[in-house]
Amino acid sequence: MSQVRVHNFSVSLDGYGTGEGLSLDAPFGHAGDRLHSWFFPTRTFRAMIGEEGGDLGVDNAMARAWADGIGAEIMGRGKFGPQHGPWQDHEWNGWWGPEPPFRTPVFVMTHHPRPAVEMQGGTTFHFVDAPPREVLRQAREAAGGLDVRIGGGPSTVRAFLAEDLVDHLHVVVVPIVLGRGVRLWDGLEGMEQRFRTETVASPSGVTHLTFTKI
Amino acid sequence: MSQVRVHNFSVSLDGYGTGEGLSLDAPFGHAGDRLHSWFFPTRTFRAMIGEEGGDLGVDNAMARAWADGIGAEIMGRGKFGPQHGPWQDHEWNGWWGPEPPFRTPVFVMTHHPRPAVEMQGGTTFHFVDAPPREVLRQAREAAGGLDVRIGGGPSTVRAFLAEDLVDHLHVVVVPIVLGRGVRLWDGLEGMEQRFRTETVASPSGVTHLTFTKI
Repeated sequence: MSQVRVHNFSVSLDGYGTGEGLSLDAPFGHAGDRLHSWFFPTRTFRAMIGEEGGDLGVDNAMARAWADGIGAEIMGRGKFGPQHGPWQDHEWNGWWGPEPPFRTPVFVMTHHPRPAVEMQGGTTFHFVDAPPREVLRQAREAAGGLDVRIGGGPSTVRAFLAEDLVDHLHVVVVPIVLGRGVRLWDGLEGMEQRFRTETVASPSGVTHLTFTKI
Repeated sequence: MSQVRVHNFSVSLDGYGTGEGLSLDAPFGHAGDRLHSWFFPTRTFRAMIGEEGGDLGVDNAMARAWADGIGAEIMGRGKFGPQHGPWQDHEWNGWWGPEPPFRTPVFVMTHHPRPAVEMQGGTTFHFVDAPPREVLRQAREAAGGLDVRIGGGPSTVRAFLAEDLVDHLHVVVVPIVLGRGVRLWDGLEGMEQRFRTETVASPSGVTHLTFTKI
């Protein structure tokens, strides 16, 4: 059976996966780039944005696993864009330009479906109004036997964790206190009991935690 | 100037420093001993309870610093005991038996002062109804030039952090989701900017973070 995986999901010490006040200019709100500054120097990130070079240390080693064996991604509407309510038009196709780094079908969970959009490089955005289990069924079908990645944001990851649908969770704890935003861990009391955990600290200051389903 | 230090302060991934439902039988409420199970095997903890042996790994190395150069401790009433409101009697002298491990003056912050109690082995409990800055003044005086430790619980540590009175903070992030209790980080947005941080993961699964005042 294909696995359901979460990778490179950054949270602050107080558990926020994104800040407050998300907008076109601030995809993570007041968090700015503080949750992801560990990620930008990695070779994995630089390849995602079409650049060469980058670090090959532990942060990259952990980040690198994100795409291997993935056949589809599921993301919340908040990851796709900052808009709320019915779409005003269909011109917005995500933050990632004409050639998004996913290169698989991507299922965007929204109460306001719109026609699928095929991007350059293998990414097709599908818009689905369905609960996690049904979206996962569709994503698995599209993944053709490969794994499905839950791409975020925090509410989406939390929903799949709450329904015990996640096999592998990679969380990056960043040593900042964000204070406001959307929390990952709410309502997940005791979830660690369903997983085996590993922890490794990086010289960058972040801690990588992996949760592997028992 | 003597420093103000916090040591061995465990929090869950969701930031709780203690659970819900504290009682005589459950000093950390529903958290049980999950926040501190990394600590019990260390030589430092075993020495605190008068036992020999114990591990000498990274958990012990980090834990061991707690007593060096400390001349006084400040703790909240919730760390001293599970009672609330006016004292029914003065028979309760903490969880630690006749010879507590502190071996210094200990200032218990409470709105219900009572006479000081001298215990065996050098610990004297003083009960003070005063704000953090004034309690610290008294503790510094009692510490005779040595450092002052803020012993917890989470509300007490948070109060001293909020007033920027802490020079060294050692937090242990335990990979569990506690879900309920008292949070450490509330109201401390951006506090990391006042500190230099270091992170080290332990094979026990916990992560030690130190915050050193810039």
